[in-house]
Amino acid sequence: MNNILNDLSSTKQPIGVFDSGYGGLTILDELVKLMPDYDFIYLGDNARAPYGTRSFDVIYQYTLQAVEKLFSMGCQLVILACNTASAKALRTIQQRDLPRIAPNRRVLGVIRPSVEQLGVLSKTKHVGVMGTLGTVRSESYLMEMAKLYPDFTVFQEACPTWVPLVENREFDNEGGRYFIKKHIDSLMSKGKQIDTIILACTHYPILNKAIESFLPKHIQLISQGEIVARSLIDYLERHPEIDHVCSKEGVLKFFTTESVADFEEKAGVFLKRDLKAQHITLS
Amino acid sequence: MNNILNDLSSTKQPIGVFDSGYGGLTILDELVKLMPDYDFIYLGDNARAPYGTRSFDVIYQYTLQAVEKLFSMGCQLVILACNTASAKALRTIQQRDLPRIAPNRRVLGVIRPSVEQLGVLSKTKHVGVMGTLGTVRSESYLMEMAKLYPDFTVFQEACPTWVPLVENREFDNEGGRYFIKKHIDSLMSKGKQIDTIILACTHYPILNKAIESFLPKHIQLISQGEIVARSLIDYLERHPEIDHVCSKEGVLKFFTTESVADFEEKAGVFLKRDLKAQHITLS
Repeated sequence: MNNILNDLSSTKQPIGVFDSGYGGLTILDELVKLMPDYDFIYLGDNARAPYGTRSFDVIYQYTLQAVEKLFSMGCQLVILACNTASAKALRTIQQRDLPRIAPNRRVLGVIRPSVEQLGVLSKTKHVGVMGTLGTVRSESYLMEMAKLYPDFTVFQEACPTWVPLVENREFDNEGGRYFIKKHIDSLMSKGKQIDTIILACTHYPILNKAIESFLPKHIQLISQGEIVARSLIDYLERHPEIDHVCSKEGVLKFFTTESVADFEEKAGVFLKRDLKAQHITLS
Repeated sequence: MNNILNDLSSTKQPIGVFDSGYGGLTILDELVKLMPDYDFIYLGDNARAPYGTRSFDVIYQYTLQAVEKLFSMGCQLVILACNTASAKALRTIQQRDLPRIAPNRRVLGVIRPSVEQLGVLSKTKHVGVMGTLGTVRSESYLMEMAKLYPDFTVFQEACPTWVPLVENREFDNEGGRYFIKKHIDSLMSKGKQIDTIILACTHYPILNKAIESFLPKHIQLISQGEIVARSLIDYLERHPEIDHVCSKEGVLKFFTTESVADFEEKAGVFLKRDLKAQHITLS
């Protein structure tokens, strides 16, 4: 496998986008907007989603399987478009697995560019992180902020009802708004000087309108899609040897580990385009 | 393995209670109330929960692994305290696997006794089934009702937000009540002559109070815990050879495939007693 994976010269290659489920489609959406010429393969491990409540070892194993699958499909660059996988698997894959299985391939996550953006945008140096219970408990944002911006104060808010609200399209009603407002109020009461908030879950941009309607007007709300896309463009400019082998025919392919029909139906909540998915097995 | 599994004479044995996660604890709760002398082993496959959205094959494989594990721990009788597993795995396990792996052991589900109870209680012969999307889509209740009570009309309502409301303890507020009322109103508008409703998800009994507050007073609401317990007592009376080997020291044991600390914390929503859990691996 090593020889195949390390030979980047022969064919042009799509960029892999991995998520445990549907949320990564909000990242893909922005990637396609800002990088319309590039080819992307989206892989959703819907059969084993959600990852948020799973243990470190399980998430690491599942994520590595997905990365290896995307490598075997020709991707030389894989984005973990999933906060949980980025928090719990990225570092080990980058440091331990890649040098062994594919030293010329790259895996990038969503947390580092998000944290960099928080540091650039906040004037009060008080920032908010809204995410799943898993992301909040992992403290990945706290640790990354402490490394890059040790003088910042970070306030976290876990919003465990938000993913079910999005996946069941139940956010645009009285019940949905109750739970959206609840967590914004909770976060703002903890950090009264917060001026910038990151939606640290790829599902949450679907709630953008409702969130903004409850946020004080001076707060900057940032979603990860555009940040990750801009960070990737920057990365490819700095690594022309990788950009050079990326295939650029604007082709999108979708793979899911669960029912293709379910995926095609639910994906519409996250990505405003018709798509055809294919089934794939990870193990 | 056959020899060990079929030799029921040597030692007294606990009754196994399997669920994909926490919901089966509401069944166990009633089992312990009505059968306080019996020993039970609860096994929650929390690492791979929820099952509701998974495909038939995956649910069958996971459930069979759990049943075999409970057999290997000495259970000769296993209750699938999970509507999804009962709907998608029970028949195959009973008909194809048990004769091969453990002909003297028994696996029982929650759907058959629930359907029998609907038939006994309803006068209008119009009944309601509230469950997860997976249970509703499987049409297991429709098929079982058609077999036992072909002259009944069954109305189904999928309530996909209810499990997250229970698991996040978010049901006793304005947002929670909105989603509870929404599905009751939807069901009652579909079946105006409904006089009996079954909560066909083991999480839902936690919502009993709120559900009853929104239901017209003449509607009978039935939960599965007591039905399954009474059905099991009846079964053991009819099968004294099995009852005879059930151990009766009132011992409860809990196993989970995920974090023990998480299990012990979350279990408190479903089972009003302190408990110690142990980790277990299924594969």
